[in-house]
Amino acid sequence: MLSSISKTLGVAAAIAAITGGSVAAQGAPISAAESDPAVMGWMQGTPPPTDKLITAASPDFFAFPKLRWTVCNIRNLFGTVPTNKGLSPSIPLEYAAPADFADMRQDIDALSFLPIGSETPVSFGEALDLNYTDGILIIHEDKVVYERYSGCLTEDGRHAAMSMTKSTVGLLAEILIAEDSLDENAPVTNYVPELSGSGFETATVRQVMDMTTGIKFDENYDNPDADIWVYSASGTAAAGAAGYEGPVGYMQYLPLVEQVAEHGAEFGYKTVNTDVLAWIVARVTGMPYNEALSEMLWSKMGAEQNAYFSSDVTGTPFAGGGMSASLRDMGRFGLLLLNEGEINGERVFPASAAQSIAAGADPEKFEPAGYTTLPGGSYRSMFWVFHNENEAYAARGMHGQTVYVDPAADMVLVRFSSFPQPKNGVIDPTSLPAYQAVADYLMAR
Amino acid sequence: MLSSISKTLGVAAAIAAITGGSVAAQGAPISAAESDPAVMGWMQGTPPPTDKLITAASPDFFAFPKLRWTVCNIRNLFGTVPTNKGLSPSIPLEYAAPADFADMRQDIDALSFLPIGSETPVSFGEALDLNYTDGILIIHEDKVVYERYSGCLTEDGRHAAMSMTKSTVGLLAEILIAEDSLDENAPVTNYVPELSGSGFETATVRQVMDMTTGIKFDENYDNPDADIWVYSASGTAAAGAAGYEGPVGYMQYLPLVEQVAEHGAEFGYKTVNTDVLAWIVARVTGMPYNEALSEMLWSKMGAEQNAYFSSDVTGTPFAGGGMSASLRDMGRFGLLLLNEGEINGERVFPASAAQSIAAGADPEKFEPAGYTTLPGGSYRSMFWVFHNENEAYAARGMHGQTVYVDPAADMVLVRFSSFPQPKNGVIDPTSLPAYQAVADYLMAR
Repeated sequence: MLSSISKTLGVAAAIAAITGGSVAAQGAPISAAESDPAVMGWMQGTPPPTDKLITAASPDFFAFPKLRWTVCNIRNLFGTVPTNKGLSPSIPLEYAAPADFADMRQDIDALSFLPIGSETPVSFGEALDLNYTDGILIIHEDKVVYERYSGCLTEDGRHAAMSMTKSTVGLLAEILIAEDSLDENAPVTNYVPELSGSGFETATVRQVMDMTTGIKFDENYDNPDADIWVYSASGTAAAGAAGYEGPVGYMQYLPLVEQVAEHGAEFGYKTVNTDVLAWIVARVTGMPYNEALSEMLWSKMGAEQNAYFSSDVTGTPFAGGGMSASLRDMGRFGLLLLNEGEINGERVFPASAAQSIAAGADPEKFEPAGYTTLPGGSYRSMFWVFHNENEAYAARGMHGQTVYVDPAADMVLVRFSSFPQPKNGVIDPTSLPAYQAVADYLMAR
Repeated sequence: MLSSISKTLGVAAAIAAITGGSVAAQGAPISAAESDPAVMGWMQGTPPPTDKLITAASPDFFAFPKLRWTVCNIRNLFGTVPTNKGLSPSIPLEYAAPADFADMRQDIDALSFLPIGSETPVSFGEALDLNYTDGILIIHEDKVVYERYSGCLTEDGRHAAMSMTKSTVGLLAEILIAEDSLDENAPVTNYVPELSGSGFETATVRQVMDMTTGIKFDENYDNPDADIWVYSASGTAAAGAAGYEGPVGYMQYLPLVEQVAEHGAEFGYKTVNTDVLAWIVARVTGMPYNEALSEMLWSKMGAEQNAYFSSDVTGTPFAGGGMSASLRDMGRFGLLLLNEGEINGERVFPASAAQSIAAGADPEKFEPAGYTTLPGGSYRSMFWVFHNENEAYAARGMHGQTVYVDPAADMVLVRFSSFPQPKNGVIDPTSLPAYQAVADYLMAR
């Protein structure tokens, strides 16, 4: 079926049709090459022509194809708060010897795999554009073996991490637990009394970390009336301006969230859990979340660039998805997980923090959520755990972002992308098998 | 007179009363210690209390005392465009040997001077708080001999450079002239045809550089109806939103500026000249001004941090005053001028670019502007030239910003501050004599 659809709609739309996305209904999106921001001419010229402007007031600034420019330029449009690396010199990532690097790049590009639900093989190199990849970095045995930039991204640029931001919060919470500064079994109100009377009142820190809270929060991005949009509005600059009557900032919204089901029973992907967890981290560390991330990771991992967060008018970072960071720094984040807290020969956090994430959660609580591309998986501490042979797990963000950690293959794979549709279920078919193919290749090498 | 006023109003207000400022009429502002952002509690807490918020929608976000937080946090409130240093390691500034550094700091703090128009001596150390200093760096014979941070500024922070931004544009234009890429005697319309039919049509590049254009542009910040506010509005995010009917972005505003007097006759401080010059630099270099600054200076001077600019909705940086940078990087900028294009043993630009600035312009064209604290001075290529014994010149920005270059004393002095009032005429009495006192001390040492 895929091949007949793809003849008329293009491969991305064909995948969307198969996996239930909505692009097919609207016609096929233009290709990665056609939608390259430089080709489109977004924000080019002094000044750019009116029809090439992307502004915070553009209703479609985060819709494809403008998305392909915006993911690298969030800070150009909005106020942001920093996660500084500090003034110490960056510690460069190690690279494979040039000849090996060239060989492996050629080999990896040629790797063939079957997309989920397809009988037609695709090469890793072909899949880069099918996935609208902006940057991809593969680290094996502590050395970079593959690195590419395209679309809006350059080595000195930063890209929206989207929901991979959540995984930074999960890791920080795990570190605080490992250091006995945070009790995962305590009610969240022990740390954030403001949540008393809300749907979070009887939830534990662990339930928030694993998103098993029974709160009411509709996060279907395709539904314009979903709670996520009201939540987003509380985080905009307009929430501080005249005429706005909703909650001002995330921390005014969160206490309004209601409970509709038992806590701890099932996984449900609800971003507000992350912002509650970041609030807890802020209270335990005594600093805003973006500064805690600087203190606990960015200033200690030899980062090359500062990261930054979109924030609400109170300066509270959007921990659920507001971080932008460089490709290589996300690689450092992945290395810290893979190597259980060590990087550059130094221990940054206790090994148990990473081990707790890698172990995953209960797949039975995950199964009802119906993620067809993640059979047998679980969600633990804001990470997606595959429970596959390689014991891989990942940070994932919409439009195709990932930090994929594969302990068996001693591999970290980071991908930034700007796939036309948001849901990873649409993007996984040409992604997850490709990562497994690289893991297989590296293990066999 | 000063002493009797200062008893009732405080010294800053007394200076204001003497020099024609408006604070005296409103009562004395609170002191530097009292207005410290940490003491005031601005944006402290998770979340900060409502009465401690500073947002882009706060009508007084750039008024004292909120100003004292905002000057370090422009990027938290607004979209910005970067001037990247690139990924090469920073080249640290050299410091005087620790014992010398400690000695000189003690000596410099104790230096006594008479403020302009006063008979009461003040010490350099006392003047720091009188001037609401946020950061000060003194470099002598290529070594840092004095460095302090206070208020909102830290060594890894960045501070609004205000109109010192203009001086970066003036230097870039001088570099392009020295490299024969720009003709200072050509009409500006040779580079920016969009200015045909405007008040700039018959102006030359040099007239724009020295602000001797006879254009109509009221820049009295105390007048709420001044042109500068209309210009500022064209640069806000609101200029891209529904309901706004004015020019969208600086480059739509500039062609609307009219001519009211002969070009070349007299100096008149009009910020639009700088944005025209930055437009010229953008056309000659083929990149937005903020990127040209990265390419020509920030990536070549061993900078420690990226700088950034507030920008309009077209992504055009506010070259007239929108840059934020670190104290040490402004020191590098000053060193490049003092050492005529060389830093870290490398030539970054031709010596003639700095020499052209240092030579100054015609004081007779400057005199009618009536800057009482700058007698005999001139304005050349967006720098203020004192024509004093030491042949000093400076980048200057409102609320007390300066990069003061003193060739005779082989000294660069950078000061970031957040003085309650904008005009430097009010701040100079406790500043310029203090700088001269340091120069005298360093020359005698």
